[in-house]
Amino acid sequence: MERYDIAVIGTGPAGLEAAITAKVRNKNILLLGSESLSVKVEKAHTIKNYLGLPEISGEDMQKAFQRHLKDMEIAITKDRVNTVYAMGDYFAIQGHKERYEASSVILSCGMSVSKPFPGELKNLGKSVSYCATCDAALYKGKSTIVIGYSKEEEKEAEFLVEVAEQVYYLPMYQDEVKIDSRIEVLSTRKPVAVERNSQKIRLLLEDGDLDADGLFILRESVAPSQLVPGLAIENNQVVVDRSMRTNIDGLFACGDITGAPYQYIKAAGEGNVAALSAINYLTEKHRKIS
Amino acid sequence: MERYDIAVIGTGPAGLEAAITAKVRNKNILLLGSESLSVKVEKAHTIKNYLGLPEISGEDMQKAFQRHLKDMEIAITKDRVNTVYAMGDYFAIQGHKERYEASSVILSCGMSVSKPFPGELKNLGKSVSYCATCDAALYKGKSTIVIGYSKEEEKEAEFLVEVAEQVYYLPMYQDEVKIDSRIEVLSTRKPVAVERNSQKIRLLLEDGDLDADGLFILRESVAPSQLVPGLAIENNQVVVDRSMRTNIDGLFACGDITGAPYQYIKAAGEGNVAALSAINYLTEKHRKIS
Repeated sequence: MERYDIAVIGTGPAGLEAAITAKVRNKNILLLGSESLSVKVEKAHTIKNYLGLPEISGEDMQKAFQRHLKDMEIAITKDRVNTVYAMGDYFAIQGHKERYEASSVILSCGMSVSKPFPGELKNLGKSVSYCATCDAALYKGKSTIVIGYSKEEEKEAEFLVEVAEQVYYLPMYQDEVKIDSRIEVLSTRKPVAVERNSQKIRLLLEDGDLDADGLFILRESVAPSQLVPGLAIENNQVVVDRSMRTNIDGLFACGDITGAPYQYIKAAGEGNVAALSAINYLTEKHRKIS
Repeated sequence: MERYDIAVIGTGPAGLEAAITAKVRNKNILLLGSESLSVKVEKAHTIKNYLGLPEISGEDMQKAFQRHLKDMEIAITKDRVNTVYAMGDYFAIQGHKERYEASSVILSCGMSVSKPFPGELKNLGKSVSYCATCDAALYKGKSTIVIGYSKEEEKEAEFLVEVAEQVYYLPMYQDEVKIDSRIEVLSTRKPVAVERNSQKIRLLLEDGDLDADGLFILRESVAPSQLVPGLAIENNQVVVDRSMRTNIDGLFACGDITGAPYQYIKAAGEGNVAALSAINYLTEKHRKIS
């Protein structure tokens, strides 16, 4: 397997700036994210305080960022990351589609907006999963519930219904659901908590509850505490120093995931610092080995 | 005297971003610096890693920044700052031309490149000065030495020669000196240290020495330790936390003055954070009073 110098997780301003800075310094980078970059940027009305791009719409800012990536020949690997494991000498990155390896990792996947449900984290890995592609095989011929936070998750539910006997789908968004007819869509039901009930998982709803063998909670971003086992978190933010170092050697974080202010130029500035810190880390590591 | 909400000292990317962010938030700002913004930016060959402005020359980046200031109707007050005094409830800012007051201050005046001469700091305020405009009157009919680090200082020397009996001028730059003929230009002589000799100040040179009543050392930026009495400094950098707070309440710092990496986008990101922190400071202060 190819081992990248630096894996950058997230394609908001922090991740893009980190990727650009690392590329300028000739590092072999993996940029994981979405080709549409960042929903938050794209939907922004007008941004007035990104120095050098006065009075710009989110859409035009996205275009400026896309142009920069194209100019530098940086490609985005379209995948979402489920877990990052610190292996000592390198990092193993479990995506929804593939597994990757990198000598250092920069987390720039934004702020996770939704809090976990009561009981969710306790049951994670025990019938609760964040990745249908990864864990569908465990539910062959069984019943499952999918909570989807964006329209994109409909595909995940459709993938699951190929394997599982039964799939309930709870959309947490406003758009109309267009999905395989074998899936039972429960648009009006709102989840409130997760419980275990002997072998079954029970999803408590505002009006009753729902039992199944497996529960998939598919958010746009995984909470940082779940993303990287052992990562130091405070107030739901990754703890970093001014070099953007986390408590894990070789792992850096930047942008909204490190806390307020949630501003584009702040995120980009931190991405630059994180990339240069990762490069320093790689240089020092190489020096120790040689 | 008008008391500004926020005084921003320095017109590199950090200061400009701080001013823009504060203006967006309707603060009454004073932006002190140079109309040509930053020599460092202007002279940069190509900048590849300022996200959103791919492969841009320093000159074009300056133009983009100028356009942003114009768009936001932010004016630059062309003055250099000699000292910032924390007065408890506000800050008194002693410029070369005027004195200003502000409720909070953001230092973004870049890294001071030249180290003080041995003996310089010890004699500061005792025949050694950083501001000809401020202290010329003390040398009426007396002899003075001016060490000028940029062509702009020639005007300061010319101002001084109207008052002082004798002015020696030591240019520390390559450009040709064009100056009032009453000033004695010593182009080839290099200063190495400062000493006091009874009532006179003695400038030690590589080849001999020079005595006078006063010595003016005119650098493009004053060392941060001299700029703000009581400011915590480490390794010639202003100590800040992730909010860009210094050890002095109401005083923030951003950009190169806070240390490496010396990168435009990092400086801009920090400028944004410093401005928002200053705004928080003002809000809390107001809350306490009312």
